[in-house]
Amino acid sequence: MKSADNNPLTSDGLIVREKEPLNLEMPFSTLSAFTTPNESFYVRCHFPIPEIAASEWQLKVEGEVETPFSLSYEELLEMESRTIAATLECAGNNRIFLEPKVKGVQWGLGAVGNASWTGVTLAAVLDRAKVKPGAIEVILEGADEGAVDKTPRPSGKISFSRSLPLGKAYDDVLLAYEMNGEKLTATHGFPLRAIVPGWYAMASVKWLRRLIVSSRPFNGYYQSLDYSFWDRSGTLPTLAPLREQQVKAEIARPEDGESVPANSTVRVHGAAWCGDGEIAKVEVSADAGATWNAAHLLDAPVKNAWRLWVFDWRTPTKAGKQRLLARATDSRNRVQPFEHDPDRGTYMINHVLPIEVEVI
Amino acid sequence: MKSADNNPLTSDGLIVREKEPLNLEMPFSTLSAFTTPNESFYVRCHFPIPEIAASEWQLKVEGEVETPFSLSYEELLEMESRTIAATLECAGNNRIFLEPKVKGVQWGLGAVGNASWTGVTLAAVLDRAKVKPGAIEVILEGADEGAVDKTPRPSGKISFSRSLPLGKAYDDVLLAYEMNGEKLTATHGFPLRAIVPGWYAMASVKWLRRLIVSSRPFNGYYQSLDYSFWDRSGTLPTLAPLREQQVKAEIARPEDGESVPANSTVRVHGAAWCGDGEIAKVEVSADAGATWNAAHLLDAPVKNAWRLWVFDWRTPTKAGKQRLLARATDSRNRVQPFEHDPDRGTYMINHVLPIEVEVI
Repeated sequence: MKSADNNPLTSDGLIVREKEPLNLEMPFSTLSAFTTPNESFYVRCHFPIPEIAASEWQLKVEGEVETPFSLSYEELLEMESRTIAATLECAGNNRIFLEPKVKGVQWGLGAVGNASWTGVTLAAVLDRAKVKPGAIEVILEGADEGAVDKTPRPSGKISFSRSLPLGKAYDDVLLAYEMNGEKLTATHGFPLRAIVPGWYAMASVKWLRRLIVSSRPFNGYYQSLDYSFWDRSGTLPTLAPLREQQVKAEIARPEDGESVPANSTVRVHGAAWCGDGEIAKVEVSADAGATWNAAHLLDAPVKNAWRLWVFDWRTPTKAGKQRLLARATDSRNRVQPFEHDPDRGTYMINHVLPIEVEVI
Repeated sequence: MKSADNNPLTSDGLIVREKEPLNLEMPFSTLSAFTTPNESFYVRCHFPIPEIAASEWQLKVEGEVETPFSLSYEELLEMESRTIAATLECAGNNRIFLEPKVKGVQWGLGAVGNASWTGVTLAAVLDRAKVKPGAIEVILEGADEGAVDKTPRPSGKISFSRSLPLGKAYDDVLLAYEMNGEKLTATHGFPLRAIVPGWYAMASVKWLRRLIVSSRPFNGYYQSLDYSFWDRSGTLPTLAPLREQQVKAEIARPEDGESVPANSTVRVHGAAWCGDGEIAKVEVSADAGATWNAAHLLDAPVKNAWRLWVFDWRTPTKAGKQRLLARATDSRNRVQPFEHDPDRGTYMINHVLPIEVEVI
């Protein structure tokens, strides 16, 4: 399990998983702070990056609303702003570890990052448009578009679009124009992107160009053929859009294949997050799961953001291979599983992953 | 365009499109009456045919109902019965004519048939269970099951299941135990199948074992990954379950490749149907679409059943190839198109198909 494999790195040290469209991963072993620097933040694109001039951009708000309107970049900046922390994780993070191998971008551990985001609430924008009674969802449409390949395939080009139930839309969704205090870059969605706290990042649509309020469920490509899973909470399995991040701890260091000194104290550290609650506990096993020890959670919990953790591991006196595991539990007592659930396909991969180290 | 290709025929003269699961097609050139004889009726299966003993079978009615119950075969036969005509057409009928070639059962012209069906109304069964307020759909579950292969793939075996909006369920859906006055055979869904008039036949679930009333939209495999299309009636394309049959005329005779005498009158005949209205007009062109002539519609229209038609063609005085076309128009003025709509994928194929004949 090597995060960087043999993939080339960008000048910022990101792993290039795909060049066109651009998909870049943070080497997770470089995790060193609660906030991921912008230049280290993973990049997920489905199509060529739209080049948008702020002066020409408008956000259209339409559909089941009393007063459809368009918002310019200038007007956006004049609205009341809010800053929130949010950990974004790609729904396909850890895909490279699935056996047998599957299609899709081969993300290792680093398609995840935490930042502070500044923008306006989606609620304020919806309120300005006055949502009609009977509306149930809002569709977020990005300016990125292209042809897709899963069948049944919509003809021509489609835009990257996802819908949110109005409950979530009004609750805590931000339309962000700043990331860690800096204007969004084109790779991260300039001029405006959604931040959907606690959900996998496919919901945090970049390059927003339109909000469409709807009175019927939207079943777009990126929430049916793609970014979906088989939900078995009802009587029969039903295809459902991916939503909440699943409870997960990842080990940043030691990294896979690293050598550590025998008979000494080695700091194991990483991050843990979940989508709908907070991290209650991270446990570390240095004996392939036979025994578990509580890690120390750093700082105070921040809603919808990851929690850093450390564990001081007393290494064995003898040289040899050791297998490290980390396992998170959330405040609703959901524990990271040991196996991937096949109903989740190539997404929502949160089973415990081993890190093999060499004690020397 | 040869209906029988080189496929083997059953002892009843049906074309074997697939042996396991069993998929049989009527050679459409044998069309000779309003009612398709049971032994000539096309057969569509997704999994091995369930062998069900009437004495052990029960239909469960559950979900969002006040009084869940089970119905035995005996009790079913004691309920008030109704007989309706309905034309069933496989949503993939005509697939063999798509260019480029696509996956799926290679149906020619004959995955369609018309029968009279006897059973109880779905409305009566739902009323007995007392549907709760807030319910929106009823899921029809068949006893046929197996593993499926389109991704995202649900794990394990799934049953063939489809949901109906309650509006349609209460309107005219029949739970049928007889076909043309005979007890259903195993191939046609014994002991009980749905008949959903006017809809493609994937909705007419066979081997019914359970009805599940639901308060949320069902997005099962056979109405999302399969038997779905890209609906562009809203702002953005949304994946929607196949429903109404599309307006279509098919020519039974002459059949493709047939020779007809020059300078004589040749009877062209076929059937036409549509899902939501009635056939208003069938036109025939004997010159590849340059001119069109009204065909004669036989008998009185019967709701949800096909309409037979004839056209007496005065053949040219000179020998040579001729291209025959038939085109239907329905009572809502919808006309058969000349091209397949790619948003329909490998389904809802109702564009005008040419029949090449040799005038000798």
